[in-house]
Amino acid sequence: MAPVPDFHVVIPAGGAGTRLWPLSRAGHPKFLTDLTAAGRTLLQQTWDRLVPLTGPDGIGIVTGQRHAGAVQNQLPDLAEQNLWIEPGPRDSMAAIGLAAAIVAQREGPQAILGSFAADHVISGQEQFEAAVRCGIDAARAGYIATLGMRATYPATAFGYIRAGEPLSPDQSFATGASAATGAQQVHAARQVVQFVEKPDAATAAKYLESGGYFWNAGMFIFQTGVLLDHLRRLQPDLHAGLIEIAAVWDTAQRATTLERIWPTLTKIAIDHAIAEPVAATGGVAVVPADFTWNDVGDWAALRGLLPAKDENTVLSVPERSSPNPLIMDGASNFVVPAAGRQVVVLGAENLVVVDTPDALLVTTQDQAQEVKEVVDALRAAGSEELL
Amino acid sequence: MAPVPDFHVVIPAGGAGTRLWPLSRAGHPKFLTDLTAAGRTLLQQTWDRLVPLTGPDGIGIVTGQRHAGAVQNQLPDLAEQNLWIEPGPRDSMAAIGLAAAIVAQREGPQAILGSFAADHVISGQEQFEAAVRCGIDAARAGYIATLGMRATYPATAFGYIRAGEPLSPDQSFATGASAATGAQQVHAARQVVQFVEKPDAATAAKYLESGGYFWNAGMFIFQTGVLLDHLRRLQPDLHAGLIEIAAVWDTAQRATTLERIWPTLTKIAIDHAIAEPVAATGGVAVVPADFTWNDVGDWAALRGLLPAKDENTVLSVPERSSPNPLIMDGASNFVVPAAGRQVVVLGAENLVVVDTPDALLVTTQDQAQEVKEVVDALRAAGSEELL
Repeated sequence: MAPVPDFHVVIPAGGAGTRLWPLSRAGHPKFLTDLTAAGRTLLQQTWDRLVPLTGPDGIGIVTGQRHAGAVQNQLPDLAEQNLWIEPGPRDSMAAIGLAAAIVAQREGPQAILGSFAADHVISGQEQFEAAVRCGIDAARAGYIATLGMRATYPATAFGYIRAGEPLSPDQSFATGASAATGAQQVHAARQVVQFVEKPDAATAAKYLESGGYFWNAGMFIFQTGVLLDHLRRLQPDLHAGLIEIAAVWDTAQRATTLERIWPTLTKIAIDHAIAEPVAATGGVAVVPADFTWNDVGDWAALRGLLPAKDENTVLSVPERSSPNPLIMDGASNFVVPAAGRQVVVLGAENLVVVDTPDALLVTTQDQAQEVKEVVDALRAAGSEELL
Repeated sequence: MAPVPDFHVVIPAGGAGTRLWPLSRAGHPKFLTDLTAAGRTLLQQTWDRLVPLTGPDGIGIVTGQRHAGAVQNQLPDLAEQNLWIEPGPRDSMAAIGLAAAIVAQREGPQAILGSFAADHVISGQEQFEAAVRCGIDAARAGYIATLGMRATYPATAFGYIRAGEPLSPDQSFATGASAATGAQQVHAARQVVQFVEKPDAATAAKYLESGGYFWNAGMFIFQTGVLLDHLRRLQPDLHAGLIEIAAVWDTAQRATTLERIWPTLTKIAIDHAIAEPVAATGGVAVVPADFTWNDVGDWAALRGLLPAKDENTVLSVPERSSPNPLIMDGASNFVVPAAGRQVVVLGAENLVVVDTPDALLVTTQDQAQEVKEVVDALRAAGSEELL
């Protein structure tokens, strides 16, 4: 199928590199890495997945100065005007709002923008495109659309989306700049009742049983004018700052304006700034997604993406050639040999062993969610060079 | 107390460096290492423990060419004539038999020789000396004496000595060259009924309960003439070869004679060659030992020698300076950071993590006995550089 006219994408490419430490670092985040040995980095895979929907000129990347060069190297088809460098991280609302304001400035408020993380792993391209197209239709009908992942187990590592009734075919949620047009697939989408935070295990089990909850993968699709209208109402200072920046983005004033305004912008996630309050007033739609999705949110999640060999899983990192690990009398271990050394695991189970040149992590798959605390502890100890 | 006249010691300093792999290697065996952070290597501690009994001229070391320089560096008081370099490893009977033949050649067959491993850890110097003096008395009475360690738990990692009746004060076991003299402490020793191999757990529990079994620590004390007489009878070829070598040891013919004979000598452990058959005919005595003994036979044994901190144990290797390991939410782990890297253990228990520049071992304390199999597997895979 051909790209969707006036559909644009922003890929926020940031992240602290904490959840897959020590392989990913602040200076070498996972989106720049070919974590699944696919021959393409996660960022490149994200590009590959979206470019059929937008064409090569329709994708913009928001990233920091530190990673701008790597992003350009990895994405040679990225137009220079679509590399949006933020002076510093100010959370997802500022990054996505900046993209929305730039696209609205260039293309008008009817232009559709989708936001997709740079470091998720998705399979099922056909299903992905179908879900995005449905989200685009819901966006044209005035909704903030999100793609909801079907829960397959009682995960406690994700937020959930509580879904309500299906949207009716002629239903629209107009908020000024938007207008319903050609919403042929809107009926597949459902009203969002509520976004809920990461649950405990018992609550997650109830969500799974009820069938009315989806995992929140943080993918949003909206008309730029609709998003900016919500933002003006809900975060007026942030809105004003982003509009002022976008107005001069393609001019010589960009640098000085960014320097003046960016550090003052409210730091808030798009979930809290937009998704939750707008859902409360009926303005968010969720598209049930049939592709498989993995946020590679910890070592256990990454392991789930890799083939097991002799019951153990080994992730080889091509640029850090190492001998094959020797795993004896052990099962369900996940070993990442990335320091050029011989790794031996003897008689252990369910371990995660990540070997890098300057840091070694040994943990269990159950504890994989806590790796962020290790990074916090190293920061507190002043070991900045390891972060 | 003064040294014992005509008491000599041989310290066989060999070993393949397999049980504490990857910290100890064939080229860097544990006896050359200060494993207990005592400020002295295990070899130096062995020397320190014995020199009060022999004086500095009474200790000889049997070692290979590869380690001769390190041995001399670590033991500046070792007389050059007492560094006995074997052309290649031919098991403990050849090494100890060579020492016995050299001492007999130099000092006569009445001279007493004790054999003590280079890499055991002992505390209780006074008790150690008392046990050795008792063993010397038993040796003067014609026995092959051994020191028996009191079993404190049902160990399956050691061979056992089954003890019989106490020796009577005037009892002697003359076999020609020996004669009972001044055996004042012989009564503390007991007849050895049998040496038994490493038992399974149930058998070990029975041994412990019976109270009649000691751990075999491989320490032997004997008149050189008594040992050589047994050897002539039990291993005549080996005896003949050793006598021929010893006859020319302090002459210019040493090298050519060694080169010709050494490679032909029977490879056999002293336990099988002497201790077991001589015990069967009543010629071995065991001295119950009251010092504490650790053969540092695996990582779990080494851990037992070190102080725990926050329930975990860390062994710092001075010559391989590394950051302090970060151990979070874990207990009873044993971490050896010896690669200069940051080691992190998160939420794991009972692990052994040994980090060296070219090899990493992750195992459990229960599996520590199996490390030798790792070394065998690496050898089979052709990874000689890691051994």
